[in-house]
Amino acid sequence: MPAMHQTFTESTDRSFGSRHVPLIRQAMAAQGLDGFLVPHEDEHQNEYLPAANDRLAWATGFTGSAGAAVILKDKAAVFVDGRYTLQVRDQVDQATFEIRDLVDGGVPAYLEIATGPGQVVGYDPRLHSPDALDRIRAAITKAGAALKAVTPNPLDEAWAGARPPQPQAPVVPQPLDYSGEDSAEKRSRVGAVIAGVNAEAAVLTAPSSIAWLFNVRGGDVIRSPLPIGQAILNRDGTARLFLDPAKVTPELPAWLGNQVRLETPDDLAEALAELKGKRVLVDPAQSSAWYFDALAAAGAEVVRGEDPCALPRATKNAREIAGTTNAHVRDGVALARFLHWLATEAQTTFPDEIEVVTKLEGLRQATGALKDLSFDTIAGALGNAALPHYRPTERLNKRTEPGSLLLVDSGAQYLDGTTDVTRTVAMGEPSQEMRERFTLVLQGHLALASVRFPVGTTGSALDVLARLPLWSRDLDYDHGTGHGVGVYLGVHEGPHRIAKMPNFVALRPGMIVSNEPGFYKEGEYGIRIENLQYVAGPDPVPGGERPMLRFEALTLAPIDRRLIVAEMLSPAERGQLDAYHARVLAEIGPRVEADVRAWLTIACAPL
Amino acid sequence: MPAMHQTFTESTDRSFGSRHVPLIRQAMAAQGLDGFLVPHEDEHQNEYLPAANDRLAWATGFTGSAGAAVILKDKAAVFVDGRYTLQVRDQVDQATFEIRDLVDGGVPAYLEIATGPGQVVGYDPRLHSPDALDRIRAAITKAGAALKAVTPNPLDEAWAGARPPQPQAPVVPQPLDYSGEDSAEKRSRVGAVIAGVNAEAAVLTAPSSIAWLFNVRGGDVIRSPLPIGQAILNRDGTARLFLDPAKVTPELPAWLGNQVRLETPDDLAEALAELKGKRVLVDPAQSSAWYFDALAAAGAEVVRGEDPCALPRATKNAREIAGTTNAHVRDGVALARFLHWLATEAQTTFPDEIEVVTKLEGLRQATGALKDLSFDTIAGALGNAALPHYRPTERLNKRTEPGSLLLVDSGAQYLDGTTDVTRTVAMGEPSQEMRERFTLVLQGHLALASVRFPVGTTGSALDVLARLPLWSRDLDYDHGTGHGVGVYLGVHEGPHRIAKMPNFVALRPGMIVSNEPGFYKEGEYGIRIENLQYVAGPDPVPGGERPMLRFEALTLAPIDRRLIVAEMLSPAERGQLDAYHARVLAEIGPRVEADVRAWLTIACAPL
Repeated sequence: MPAMHQTFTESTDRSFGSRHVPLIRQAMAAQGLDGFLVPHEDEHQNEYLPAANDRLAWATGFTGSAGAAVILKDKAAVFVDGRYTLQVRDQVDQATFEIRDLVDGGVPAYLEIATGPGQVVGYDPRLHSPDALDRIRAAITKAGAALKAVTPNPLDEAWAGARPPQPQAPVVPQPLDYSGEDSAEKRSRVGAVIAGVNAEAAVLTAPSSIAWLFNVRGGDVIRSPLPIGQAILNRDGTARLFLDPAKVTPELPAWLGNQVRLETPDDLAEALAELKGKRVLVDPAQSSAWYFDALAAAGAEVVRGEDPCALPRATKNAREIAGTTNAHVRDGVALARFLHWLATEAQTTFPDEIEVVTKLEGLRQATGALKDLSFDTIAGALGNAALPHYRPTERLNKRTEPGSLLLVDSGAQYLDGTTDVTRTVAMGEPSQEMRERFTLVLQGHLALASVRFPVGTTGSALDVLARLPLWSRDLDYDHGTGHGVGVYLGVHEGPHRIAKMPNFVALRPGMIVSNEPGFYKEGEYGIRIENLQYVAGPDPVPGGERPMLRFEALTLAPIDRRLIVAEMLSPAERGQLDAYHARVLAEIGPRVEADVRAWLTIACAPL
Repeated sequence: MPAMHQTFTESTDRSFGSRHVPLIRQAMAAQGLDGFLVPHEDEHQNEYLPAANDRLAWATGFTGSAGAAVILKDKAAVFVDGRYTLQVRDQVDQATFEIRDLVDGGVPAYLEIATGPGQVVGYDPRLHSPDALDRIRAAITKAGAALKAVTPNPLDEAWAGARPPQPQAPVVPQPLDYSGEDSAEKRSRVGAVIAGVNAEAAVLTAPSSIAWLFNVRGGDVIRSPLPIGQAILNRDGTARLFLDPAKVTPELPAWLGNQVRLETPDDLAEALAELKGKRVLVDPAQSSAWYFDALAAAGAEVVRGEDPCALPRATKNAREIAGTTNAHVRDGVALARFLHWLATEAQTTFPDEIEVVTKLEGLRQATGALKDLSFDTIAGALGNAALPHYRPTERLNKRTEPGSLLLVDSGAQYLDGTTDVTRTVAMGEPSQEMRERFTLVLQGHLALASVRFPVGTTGSALDVLARLPLWSRDLDYDHGTGHGVGVYLGVHEGPHRIAKMPNFVALRPGMIVSNEPGFYKEGEYGIRIENLQYVAGPDPVPGGERPMLRFEALTLAPIDRRLIVAEMLSPAERGQLDAYHARVLAEIGPRVEADVRAWLTIACAPL
């Protein structure tokens, strides 16, 4: 049996701040800096970072997926959003760091007060988006201080001895059987997008864009098959691809073909300089200020706009949908075995969270196709489930108990697709309140799963459907309802999403998006029901006048009927759930053992 | 009986373009211009214009509420959005004007192609927002042409002999009984908003802001009690108010008090010059480039931001809600009499649209409190009802017929409130398709009327609720679902709205908003159901965790039960409609004559 992907140790502890900040301050002093900015983002503006690039964690101890720190000579602050309020207090030494809100005021408001005339605050231009820097510069200037780009990064100097090596996972072809479209075709299509904004080339730095555009996969970013690299794509479809030679596999040059010149990261600066006088598209949300500065210095005209791969990548083709459908059937087999175990043996042994995670990963390994998890499994028992971004560790691990809920949010990376599924399961006999609130969450999930919507509708227009049943009881949840998902790519990808926050991206056929309403009672329990679904259609009905779209579920796993108050469901909701369960049984039943099938038949029977 | 407010003549005809464009071109030539821009907006960026300011109508014949024209030496184009596609073809001479889309490319795209090197295109800086001008300037510059601010406006020169006089309606106090808050308090509150963006003063140019802030009303803008004027409000609450002396009534100076200096429009330029060196808040959506240019020339620092009166004005106080509630009861009496007439006598006489409009205005006059209509009544018979912005005229007037629908969208201005209501009524026996689609529209209306939503929710998040029943049959409508409404102010006011288009303004207690889904079958019939409702709450339920808001209906008028397919309604929807009808009967029944009451009792009986 292969080693577990997921581990239960903690990569940081509360001593990190008091041990590392003095080292950073020494390096700052050597460069004459009064302050230094430490964002969560790395050189590639990734959400999930290689350990070697998690500077914020090393400086502060905080390991969340969003945040920042400011280190001044005599004080320091760490900034997180509402999702991480509890976690940051658990992980960060508050004698070293003041804890502040990332959204409300954030770094600029702090700098405006905490810095003063004549002071110099340094930043590493590879780590900040130009927009974020503009806001910070305005605040610092107001305080009379100055913002200065510095090389080398004083944190990197302080970290030098202990820093993990940069990832160098091999970059391999992703066969056409899975991608469904030749890289040359993709480059030609994206080239037309570049021409459409009257640019001559685009600089691409998002690992997911590199992977998608060139039909390659790597492994530099944790839990995602993404290669770190950069590319310059010309409007004629030719490209220059910059990859660490250590990652280039022998088959790669032939796979890329003669329209793609393979170069090293050392060649990048000169390649940017050669764009002199040209209009070049760069995405300020994906590419750091370093690229903007380099292009400006070269005399190129920068066109700020969305990464031209983002929308084509999000709109999956038929082959990708077929692949991810297969991946979800395979994952559904592992899930059926897992949920069978939870419904039978685990109801007497009451496993702890780590045992739950280990069991599920073992069942996914048993498919023989698991490349990686798509993220660390969130198995939350009791009050841990009320933390939407919880990850079990040896220290935090809780055992399930009778009369409680177990929330398991997990996913897998397979060559043909990426999965992400949450099921909440009753351990012992759940309370009536738990069942009622689970049913409200289920009603929201069903409403979003079944909506028909006109072409042009955005995810933010649909978000309310998942919340309405909770709202009717004065309840809600504080996270988005759905995120985009890749096909053997990142488990979070844009540009579409389903959330309260307004979004201007219309849902298009082929987009994959999660449907995951929840309810959380702090310190007591958490509920979430998540399926992945893709946008299907158009699919007209008789007498209709508008081209309409709908969602088709990808995830195939029963929803715990012990948690459903059947009388709360309308006949239509009941019919919808029964039809979903019938599909789960038809697809998964023939693929599992007799005892699992017998259980699945009952779990999927009409309500 | 007083004269009718509404008239049925047309203020333009299709000869306007061929008669007026040559005159404009002469005046352009005298100033050396190759082109001239004619926006719909006037000096006050109003939606509804005084006739003296409807330059677009005079130049082109087009009378819609949004649009623009470009007049070049040898060609011209008029630009409208999708709402006005049919109307523009009816009103504009296409030998003179090419018709183009206002949204898709619009004026800038046209200018980029239609102008060339060395050409000079003029504009009147009082008529354009700075943002719109920036886009136009970029396009013209790309073409090698130049954009030039000109005085006098060549269209105004050409129009001089025939132009109606500027409105000079008297400006009168709006008593505290109706406004509920002293102007000094309002000025102090808004002054704090100005201080909050670190500005020293704000320039206010929106007539609705002038009216609200100083508790005055006027009559310069058609169908709205709005005075045209400008003000400079200082952060300490003192103000300078610029009004044409001909409009100043004797009681006004004492009403304004000694913290408000009353001046003439001629004093405005110098007053702006005195803002030198100060930070001044101006709303680029409300104030034209002329203000930005004048402040920049004076050496003031312009802070672009929303009109600081917009949000306080939209959030009505208890006295305003009480006033508008009274206005809606009064209007409900007129509506009950009107709907009784439509359900009885009109079912045999089959009136035409003008007779319908005249009847309704007469019944509103009979309340003794009607100040004006809040907009020209839209009475649409047969296919005319499928035009959401239709206005009956002698030329277009249609007679109702058996087996058809009559759509009546109307409203009144009373001292204590502004109403806006749409009812669709069956004439003779409606078809099953009409009844089914009416019921879908009703279901959407009821869903939006009954939603409970958390504090912080925007109108765009709720829009889908009104559309979902239509979407389920692949139907939709192409207008917003709800607009803000004033209290004896404009019938359209922001900053909130309920629409597909993303909006970042959260709904707050006291905001009034319409709820008006519809369905339109081109050339055949139109359906719309509109109530005004206000945001009430917070209003907790037991076991709830979040502060929630809800809507309370203001409009009191029965919904035509002959158009409802009762079996399509859920028990909850039926209960909601029955409760609404019971409230209509309880409020209006005691206030109408016996025959109307007898009919109302049946019209409001449980389904």
